Amino acid sequence: MIVYERPNALRLFFALRGSILPRIAPSLLTCTLLAVVVTLSHGVLFHWKITLTPVPFSLIGLALAIFLGFRNSTAYDRYWEARGLWGRMVQSSRTLARQWLSLVRPAEDSSAGRQAHGDFVRRCIAHAHMVRHQLRGSTPGPELDGLLDPQEIDAALRLRLPSEALLRRNAGLLGRALEEGRVAPALAAEIDRSLTELTQAHAGCERLRGTPIPFAYMLLLHRTAYLYCFLLPFGLIDQLGFMTPFVVAIVAYTFFGLDALGDEIEQPFGLSAHHLPLDALCRVIEIDLREALGEPAPPPLQAVDGCLR
Amino acid sequence: MIVYERPNALRLFFALRGSILPRIAPSLLTCTLLAVVVTLSHGVLFHWKITLTPVPFSLIGLALAIFLGFRNSTAYDRYWEARGLWGRMVQSSRTLARQWLSLVRPAEDSSAGRQAHGDFVRRCIAHAHMVRHQLRGSTPGPELDGLLDPQEIDAALRLRLPSEALLRRNAGLLGRALEEGRVAPALAAEIDRSLTELTQAHAGCERLRGTPIPFAYMLLLHRTAYLYCFLLPFGLIDQLGFMTPFVVAIVAYTFFGLDALGDEIEQPFGLSAHHLPLDALCRVIEIDLREALGEPAPPPLQAVDGCLR
Amino acid sequence: MIVYERPNALRLFFALRGSILPRIAPSLLTCTLLAVVVTLSHGVLFHWKITLTPVPFSLIGLALAIFLGFRNSTAYDRYWEARGLWGRMVQSSRTLARQWLSLVRPAEDSSAGRQAHGDFVRRCIAHAHMVRHQLRGSTPGPELDGLLDPQEIDAALRLRLPSEALLRRNAGLLGRALEEGRVAPALAAEIDRSLTELTQAHAGCERLRGTPIPFAYMLLLHRTAYLYCFLLPFGLIDQLGFMTPFVVAIVAYTFFGLDALGDEIEQPFGLSAHHLPLDALCRVIEIDLREALGEPAPPPLQAVDGCLR
Amino acid sequence: MIVYERPNALRLFFALRGSILPRIAPSLLTCTLLAVVVTLSHGVLFHWKITLTPVPFSLIGLALAIFLGFRNSTAYDRYWEARGLWGRMVQSSRTLARQWLSLVRPAEDSSAGRQAHGDFVRRCIAHAHMVRHQLRGSTPGPELDGLLDPQEIDAALRLRLPSEALLRRNAGLLGRALEEGRVAPALAAEIDRSLTELTQAHAGCERLRGTPIPFAYMLLLHRTAYLYCFLLPFGLIDQLGFMTPFVVAIVAYTFFGLDALGDEIEQPFGLSAHHLPLDALCRVIEIDLREALGEPAPPPLQAVDGCLR
Amino acid sequence: MIVYERPNALRLFFALRGSILPRIAPSLLTCTLLAVVVTLSHGVLFHWKITLTPVPFSLIGLALAIFLGFRNSTAYDRYWEARGLWGRMVQSSRTLARQWLSLVRPAEDSSAGRQAHGDFVRRCIAHAHMVRHQLRGSTPGPELDGLLDPQEIDAALRLRLPSEALLRRNAGLLGRALEEGRVAPALAAEIDRSLTELTQAHAGCERLRGTPIPFAYMLLLHRTAYLYCFLLPFGLIDQLGFMTPFVVAIVAYTFFGLDALGDEIEQPFGLSAHHLPLDALCRVIEIDLREALGEPAPPPLQAVDGCLR
Repeated sequence: MIVYERPNALRLFFALRGSILPRIAPSLLTCTLLAVVVTLSHGVLFHWKITLTPVPFSLIGLALAIFLGFRNSTAYDRYWEARGLWGRMVQSSRTLARQWLSLVRPAEDSSAGRQAHGDFVRRCIAHAHMVRHQLRGSTPGPELDGLLDPQEIDAALRLRLPSEALLRRNAGLLGRALEEGRVAPALAAEIDRSLTELTQAHAGCERLRGTPIPFAYMLLLHRTAYLYCFLLPFGLIDQLGFMTPFVVAIVAYTFFGLDALGDEIEQPFGLSAHHLPLDALCRVIEIDLREALGEPAPPPLQAVDGCLR
Repeated sequence: MIVYERPNALRLFFALRGSILPRIAPSLLTCTLLAVVVTLSHGVLFHWKITLTPVPFSLIGLALAIFLGFRNSTAYDRYWEARGLWGRMVQSSRTLARQWLSLVRPAEDSSAGRQAHGDFVRRCIAHAHMVRHQLRGSTPGPELDGLLDPQEIDAALRLRLPSEALLRRNAGLLGRALEEGRVAPALAAEIDRSLTELTQAHAGCERLRGTPIPFAYMLLLHRTAYLYCFLLPFGLIDQLGFMTPFVVAIVAYTFFGLDALGDEIEQPFGLSAHHLPLDALCRVIEIDLREALGEPAPPPLQAVDGCLR
Repeated sequence: MIVYERPNALRLFFALRGSILPRIAPSLLTCTLLAVVVTLSHGVLFHWKITLTPVPFSLIGLALAIFLGFRNSTAYDRYWEARGLWGRMVQSSRTLARQWLSLVRPAEDSSAGRQAHGDFVRRCIAHAHMVRHQLRGSTPGPELDGLLDPQEIDAALRLRLPSEALLRRNAGLLGRALEEGRVAPALAAEIDRSLTELTQAHAGCERLRGTPIPFAYMLLLHRTAYLYCFLLPFGLIDQLGFMTPFVVAIVAYTFFGLDALGDEIEQPFGLSAHHLPLDALCRVIEIDLREALGEPAPPPLQAVDGCLR
Repeated sequence: MIVYERPNALRLFFALRGSILPRIAPSLLTCTLLAVVVTLSHGVLFHWKITLTPVPFSLIGLALAIFLGFRNSTAYDRYWEARGLWGRMVQSSRTLARQWLSLVRPAEDSSAGRQAHGDFVRRCIAHAHMVRHQLRGSTPGPELDGLLDPQEIDAALRLRLPSEALLRRNAGLLGRALEEGRVAPALAAEIDRSLTELTQAHAGCERLRGTPIPFAYMLLLHRTAYLYCFLLPFGLIDQLGFMTPFVVAIVAYTFFGLDALGDEIEQPFGLSAHHLPLDALCRVIEIDLREALGEPAPPPLQAVDGCLR
Repeated sequence: MIVYERPNALRLFFALRGSILPRIAPSLLTCTLLAVVVTLSHGVLFHWKITLTPVPFSLIGLALAIFLGFRNSTAYDRYWEARGLWGRMVQSSRTLARQWLSLVRPAEDSSAGRQAHGDFVRRCIAHAHMVRHQLRGSTPGPELDGLLDPQEIDAALRLRLPSEALLRRNAGLLGRALEEGRVAPALAAEIDRSLTELTQAHAGCERLRGTPIPFAYMLLLHRTAYLYCFLLPFGLIDQLGFMTPFVVAIVAYTFFGLDALGDEIEQPFGLSAHHLPLDALCRVIEIDLREALGEPAPPPLQAVDGCLR
């Protein structure tokens, strides 16, 4: 995610970092070059004058507006839903820590007992890291050291859903506390519900990751946008003359840019500059849960080159 | 569901797999042929010059844009709601497994007792398969073997809602555990709520399946779109000349394509390439619940010809 | 609700059943006739040439598009919300049956006791019928026989909300079971919540029924649409000549049709072909609850003339 | 709220009651008069011909469409949210009555004890009246007599939130019943949740009342709409001639009407004809809760002059 | 937040306070000046006639309408979500106070004991202040005196999330009450849920604060809007002549104004005139909770210069 202070209008105009421009440059250049050729040949292709006026473009524009508006809002809704799911992750981890520490008695009322009691909370930190790695398809690194027993990590990583194994382990701790009478059933039910919240948030992220916008939409949109932009110079040349390539470039920039941007943010769990800063969110969870444990917390992650990952 | 890696722009342009094009080819061809006829006759039909200009099309286009935009977003909303309901299915099955295994004591604390205890979880896997078959109108096959007693399958299949019978059976197990004091009432309430979640997810899918978008909408949209496209050549011929059929084909492609695509995805429980991959989702549930039981899990389903069913 | 197999394009084009056409025929004819008169008089009214061009219609069209789009989505949202509320009704009835039969012990453990125990579930079926009649303003018929004591029906029907009286009666049964220790409090709370769900679903339907879209919206929309369509021939005659009435008819068909359709489905509890099939949904509840009781269930309702009520 | 039977098209066209027309008459007249002046002077102002064409109006119309569409949907969403909150009020009051009467034992099992037991329910009726008065800024009248002790009313009215004091009092009754063992804790929790529902519904209404749509939106919309309508005659005069004032009046009617209507319904708790019928809703609550108590209920409120308040 | 009585149309037209005009004045002036230059030179730049017509602007306008509509609704949705989260804050604080005072017995049944019992409620007031300061990046001042022990404030302020420390402290009080049998577990679970509600509301605010609309959207929108407005004079000059700068100014006012307004309200926790009145909302919480404690309450905050902060 790009972290910015709103720059002034002029610098915003020429900013390249965080822009979608580099990604669409090839299509944009091709399209503009074609417009230059059409301008130089006055719309005549192989001795045929292509008789197009602006009218067809407003007709096709009707469908294109529906596609682009839909694409735009769908992609952003997915982005925002993903952020909301991670918000639930943050909030449920905090809630679990508060509930466990205030409503469940440690097995032993000693310093070591209280230390062991905190393992439940540390496993919540590990859970967030685990979910992040599952979503990004990466392998957990040293960030799990000190949070979990190496054996537990190994056992979990052999499964399809390592994060769920951690939740089951914590549920086991809860079940034990319940049997030993260290937590009342009604409150154990409440804690179990917070575990369910974590499962829900994670399942929601999986759903977003596994279900893109139907492929046929991409095709329809893509084809219509390209046909539109590549035919546009023929429709404008008689009215605009030498300004044609310039106008075509602007129109193509907005259409291709919108499409490419949607493509970026509809799968927001990656590592690109427009994706969600999962590293930073996991760090937030770590800080908050360490504070709840009364342990020293690491500092928040800082943006690198204006970008938080 | 079509699983794809975003191909480059050019290949995307000519892709046929996953395209809606084959489905709308007849209408599209008819429409284009008519445009060719109109072009050749210069808009004269039976010695009458049909005096249409682009103006009426922008007026009708107003209503058409509302219809198509509505159609589009409604169909997608249904698709996404259906996916969300199956997401709840996945998540609630996982939650039920975690709750049952961590919060309810087996009837007997022996190896056989623990094995029998797992039947609750296996029935959750069977439940997902059952719901899938009910939604697709198909008959359960060998995937239920080893999960349920053949007698139970037969009894369930004689009912209108076999899946609900499985839930009632699991509720019976819960009731017995409660009577025998193997689970605290507050936690049994929590588990019962997860059963209710499954009922809700299933009832939501039934609702989508049983209630299409009102038929009169289809009629209004269909008629307006067809009238629009079939009249279009008369409105364009005086301005565009020989380019008329080309423009008509593009416009008709976008309108008919949007309509046909909506038609596909608004009932997303089928077996077409644009429908939800229920087989794969049931497999995911099976893997996760087998892992929770500590049993060997089958591999995830793979896409066949780029398509996951 | 009209139940259809998607017919082919041509038959869809000429379908009358399920069309909104009959309802808007008078306005549509008036409008088209006026257009014919205007065409014949070349836009001259009482020796005054009405100087209108297409321009004003695109300006007014701006507001009209907002109105119609709003009307359309609001009406459909109401329709879909109503369907969702009945979906909750179906699901909560099923849940109540499961909960009552698996979590509450019968007062007597005899055949008669189990039979009496099922009265709770039968009253849930009666509740659905009662809500349906309240929403449609009709009187319950023989469908309640065998479900409820005639005296209870009479007493309930004397109240403003008979359905709520049934819920209170079931709540009384729950209270008694609780006092007699036949259900644990935490589970009684869970069952009470399902009763609340039924109250919520019903209250939601009442809300939809009692609160139409604000009347002033109807006026604004209605007036703008009629002014637009009745003035349209004056704006088109100079460009389109004899095609004017044809274009006016199409435009008026879409606008009036959209308005009339919204009018139909925004109050979806009636008996028209576009309303929700409450009879069929009540039958679904009856089947599912009879199956839960292990009693023989009636067959599902079938569509009559392609229409399910 | 205006209660209507859909009148026929013609009468709907000339209806004044429930129309927004009287409210916007001054602006509409000014605007039309200006258009008449412009028409008579052929667009020449102080010997300068104002050179405007329809083009700028379609450009400005772009932003105006966004503003008006946003305004419209936001205002209606607020209206509908307010109605939904009152729906929760109705439903939660019913639920509270059912829960209290079926799940909590009276302090004394005598006729007087049962009468006193009903005070909880009567206070729920008073709560609805209280919330209504708080939202409308009015003072409770005789409708509270017989529901609450005059002393309790006086004490409550001295606070900023009298309604919340009633809820606290009912919570006190619940706390007492809990201490005396007349209700199980799990069910007291359920009843407490219904009290929370009432707090939520009320807080939601307060939120709507206290937070209008940001003022700057009003300014932007208002200025753009007025500039648009006042400049419009200059843009149309060359094309439309003597029809200009007529077209300007229609356009201004739709724009000003939409704005004024939004203004009315975005704060829906007042007493105008377009506001929510809070009196009638409180009466509904009173009837339903009296029926639950088995007491005689007042009749429902009737519309006065077609308007329910 | 600007608090207004709807002024009459004329005064609304010239209002400056609460207008977005001052903020966009530089861009607006630059744009208008350019239009004046273009008008004086008749669209000739460095001896080249820039051949633009209105057509390109309606094509670019297509994408611009999507951007601006999206920008507008997204920004407002964030504003409204933020307000809703603070509504939950208000409501949950009230609920917590009601629950604590009616369902938990004080540790000692003496005047001092009841006084100490109220600390839980006072900490809820402090929590709201703390959240406000965290969101605004400001330091708590004397408003916490009398609510919390100075030591507790100091300890909390040393953490990243001081507000969460207060909730944990209250959760500790709840845990103690539970151990001492002063509250039933089922009701403690209910109170714990209200604490979770506060965590959720706060986490939601943090999410809004930490996740702006993706930066690339800002770039696309900003560039398109500026290109549009700066090129516009060239497209209008041939048709509109000396009216060009006037029309350009209006168009630019609406586009830049919409953009700037979105920029203001999408981060609604600041101190500008368009932001949420967090001070006033905290005061509301303080009043309601003091009333619940039966203590004298401060007066509500009043708007200063028509603006509530």
